[in-house]
Amino acid sequence: MVMKVYGAVFSTPAQRVLAALYEKDLVFEFVPVDMWAGEHKQEHFLALNPFGQVPAFEDGDLRLFESRAIAQYIAHAYKDKGTPLVCEGKLMAIVSVWMEVEAHQFDTVVSKLQWELVYKPKSGMATDVAVVEENEAKLSKVLDVYEARLSQSKYLGGDCFTLADLHHLPTLSNLMGTPLKKLFDAHPKVNAWAAKIVARPAWAKVLAMKNQQ
Amino acid sequence: MVMKVYGAVFSTPAQRVLAALYEKDLVFEFVPVDMWAGEHKQEHFLALNPFGQVPAFEDGDLRLFESRAIAQYIAHAYKDKGTPLVCEGKLMAIVSVWMEVEAHQFDTVVSKLQWELVYKPKSGMATDVAVVEENEAKLSKVLDVYEARLSQSKYLGGDCFTLADLHHLPTLSNLMGTPLKKLFDAHPKVNAWAAKIVARPAWAKVLAMKNQQ
Repeated sequence: MVMKVYGAVFSTPAQRVLAALYEKDLVFEFVPVDMWAGEHKQEHFLALNPFGQVPAFEDGDLRLFESRAIAQYIAHAYKDKGTPLVCEGKLMAIVSVWMEVEAHQFDTVVSKLQWELVYKPKSGMATDVAVVEENEAKLSKVLDVYEARLSQSKYLGGDCFTLADLHHLPTLSNLMGTPLKKLFDAHPKVNAWAAKIVARPAWAKVLAMKNQQ
Repeated sequence: MVMKVYGAVFSTPAQRVLAALYEKDLVFEFVPVDMWAGEHKQEHFLALNPFGQVPAFEDGDLRLFESRAIAQYIAHAYKDKGTPLVCEGKLMAIVSVWMEVEAHQFDTVVSKLQWELVYKPKSGMATDVAVVEENEAKLSKVLDVYEARLSQSKYLGGDCFTLADLHHLPTLSNLMGTPLKKLFDAHPKVNAWAAKIVARPAWAKVLAMKNQQ
């Protein structure tokens, strides 16, 4: 039975799972969820994710939700396929630190910026300049730490591309298309890292799916 | 060389790491960080955690930060000691889902409630009733999902106590001492689970450290 991803291609958490599947060169079926019609809040979807959020995932009788947990499962369960994405022992502990940094330092700030600078303009809503300024200052400080880290190692988790980098891709990619690209330009190591990870063939496949919509 | 935890015992992320160490029956040194004096923003601490947040952790030459990453390291590196806390394969994937739920569904709401109902009153600041009401409603919905989950399995990750439960302990324990205990009373399975996990001997040791302060 082929793996199934339930989601919408414009959803950044869904894109995170798609990126992991493409990095692993795995065959899967994408099942679109009509979020505009509120399908993610309907009973059949709530059976897959009780919080009513995309993506949800099935691999045989295993049902998962929460994008970062799904990506971790894919990386561990299919560790001999495609890009490794995870390491063993102490190296994995460092990767885990930077996965937590993405979730708690980067995403908390970037998700607010993405809402103001990407989703609100698309929906004809006005951007809240004060929220942008507050979070732009926070993001700049986060990127200072990333700059120092990426001066010591090629990728966030170490010298190879792992989930710690991959988890950033969807929101990072959105942000690069906004005026906040300037924050990356001001952090050369971060900018080079960002350019390198968005150029990965697996990510190009996710963007192609998104652009087909 | 003995493991070191750098932190403050009133910090919920530090308590998360201490709970994991006590569950594992490990010997460690607790190095107090004087947060009132801003020690966590000083250069010697920033070398341990560039984000200037407690806890930080050392095991030999391995330096980690982010409480959930540290707890995962402890659980995996010392898997043959004390309480297992993690599983293998597909069971671990389910534990990971509920670890993500704690971080993204529970903690995001509870940290705001904790600020309003625990820390602000302690510092003589006024509680923002509107913020409490908004997040109380959100927490109630989260606990509805927990109630359904805990009707199917003894603990969040499955039939044994794991990191998915442990990660909740510090904030859950704080919340139980506020008027929001009523939300737990209204969710009997959640209430029984909460009572069971806060009664663990390892957690009693963390509370004893906190009360010595």
